[in-house]
Amino acid sequence: MIAGVDVGGANTKICTEDGAFIKVIYQPLWKKKSLEEVLSLIPEDSEVAVVMTGELSDVFGSKLEGIEWIVKEVKKKFPDAKFFGLDMKFHSSASPLLDASNWLASSLFISEIFPDVLFVDTGSTTTDIIPVVGGKIRAHLSDFERMKNQELLYFGVLRTPVSSLLPHFEHENRKIRIASEYFACVGDIYLLLGHLREEDYICETPDGRGKSMEDVKRRISRMFCADPEELDESLIFELAEKVMEVQIDEIESSLRRLSSEHSLSDVFGCGIGEFLIREASERAELEYHSAQEIFGKDISTVFTAYSVANLMKKRSSQLM
Amino acid sequence: MIAGVDVGGANTKICTEDGAFIKVIYQPLWKKKSLEEVLSLIPEDSEVAVVMTGELSDVFGSKLEGIEWIVKEVKKKFPDAKFFGLDMKFHSSASPLLDASNWLASSLFISEIFPDVLFVDTGSTTTDIIPVVGGKIRAHLSDFERMKNQELLYFGVLRTPVSSLLPHFEHENRKIRIASEYFACVGDIYLLLGHLREEDYICETPDGRGKSMEDVKRRISRMFCADPEELDESLIFELAEKVMEVQIDEIESSLRRLSSEHSLSDVFGCGIGEFLIREASERAELEYHSAQEIFGKDISTVFTAYSVANLMKKRSSQLM
Repeated sequence: MIAGVDVGGANTKICTEDGAFIKVIYQPLWKKKSLEEVLSLIPEDSEVAVVMTGELSDVFGSKLEGIEWIVKEVKKKFPDAKFFGLDMKFHSSASPLLDASNWLASSLFISEIFPDVLFVDTGSTTTDIIPVVGGKIRAHLSDFERMKNQELLYFGVLRTPVSSLLPHFEHENRKIRIASEYFACVGDIYLLLGHLREEDYICETPDGRGKSMEDVKRRISRMFCADPEELDESLIFELAEKVMEVQIDEIESSLRRLSSEHSLSDVFGCGIGEFLIREASERAELEYHSAQEIFGKDISTVFTAYSVANLMKKRSSQLM
Repeated sequence: MIAGVDVGGANTKICTEDGAFIKVIYQPLWKKKSLEEVLSLIPEDSEVAVVMTGELSDVFGSKLEGIEWIVKEVKKKFPDAKFFGLDMKFHSSASPLLDASNWLASSLFISEIFPDVLFVDTGSTTTDIIPVVGGKIRAHLSDFERMKNQELLYFGVLRTPVSSLLPHFEHENRKIRIASEYFACVGDIYLLLGHLREEDYICETPDGRGKSMEDVKRRISRMFCADPEELDESLIFELAEKVMEVQIDEIESSLRRLSSEHSLSDVFGCGIGEFLIREASERAELEYHSAQEIFGKDISTVFTAYSVANLMKKRSSQLM
């Protein structure tokens, strides 16, 4: 059995090559720098294939320091683990090539099924938009280059602070600066709007409290420095709708630009935020292919881990 | 001796009525809900006059719960402490009137010196802009109403996340969404630009590391998902300058609006972020009066605490 593992800064995802074993663990590296618990979930006799983004966590002084730490931790438990790199090869030891390569594994995997497509993955924290043209991955390599080219939109559907999506709230012709605090996250927004269920909201809540509608409304009210009783409830929903519009709008803008640049007309979307990708694709008038529909909802949310497991499987079979 | 105390969510400030004793303590209520250490700094025989904003911290389920907790904690150590309220009176017990009243204490105090002025206080986290007309405070009362009227801009010069001030960075005709993470705060920005000194940066750094230029540049680089070596250093400064422009611009816009609405031509500025207020006042062509110059730098940064101590002193002398 091959276990694909995607080590993020906040969540680590595990998925076997057949999708039979799937785990998503909220394990914020900046709180407790440990992978022990996560790794203990992987059956001991597994072949292990790893991608990562957790090296960006500011618990590490540099990204290479993060890569070295992650590789060391994984190899302690799985000495034969392999790490997928930006050169599209598997590595046995730490290298700058391992930096933020999870989107490459999943877009490479999808390129075999959709050789001409915009691959889009909206997770808890980030959105990757990767042009695949004639079976080749055409994205830039570093996160910074991807940011500059709208191939990386650093927002997702759970952990993202509301205040970095909607610093200003337009209301009755006035521009209100909402609280520049992590009082509410977009997980609250999509729970309120019914696009996510409580069990999808796997990260911690900003105030450490619950995920009931009451809790969610209280957190969103705090963006206005208010308790819920001080506000017209419609304002809470208005803010939520506007946050969603910002995200759809930016994804749409990126899809339009990249589809035009690479003459692509199809989108393949995966991740817990597929609902945003679908809507943005429709607005951009692109053909939408859903990982949820093709592979099932569970695999969609761990698509990078599923992909790296399958890349490893293919590689093993080629070697034989 | 009268000790004025301003209990914030992140910082608590203490100042005696003569300004001889001044302390600013970084005591984030959401990390460790305790005021013990802060209160122990106040000489035991002091009369104590309190204002607060700490009740907004999401460690409390509601603002009233926060007010009740703060009052209880203070009275444990100083049973005769008085709490300044939105009715401009001192109270002996908890009341919704105590919610976010620190700006009222300081603007009331300044109204005796400048009866027609925009009182502006830019602290670590927020900026209050309070119209004083004919000696009367003309601001709205609740934080939410003040937000709607640009009398409260929820940003300051230390703790504010860079990503809620500049979610997009315009660069070479491209709109880059920077990381929606608390990788760097505006304290880093103003340390980099030389507007604050290390000793002014009293809050924790976002990554818990140091305040050297190297540390600061590393944190700002992370907004681009990069280590400093990956970036042209001019980009780090460019981002910093743009963040500062956003803040000056919003303060200027609020000053223009409120000065016009209330026919005011003078600004009185205080707080650790006075440098922003001065610049915004000049751009708005308003006469600037500096708390630093009139009262000294130390009193400027604890102006609310200084003010509430002096309001209490005046009240005591009136009672005699």
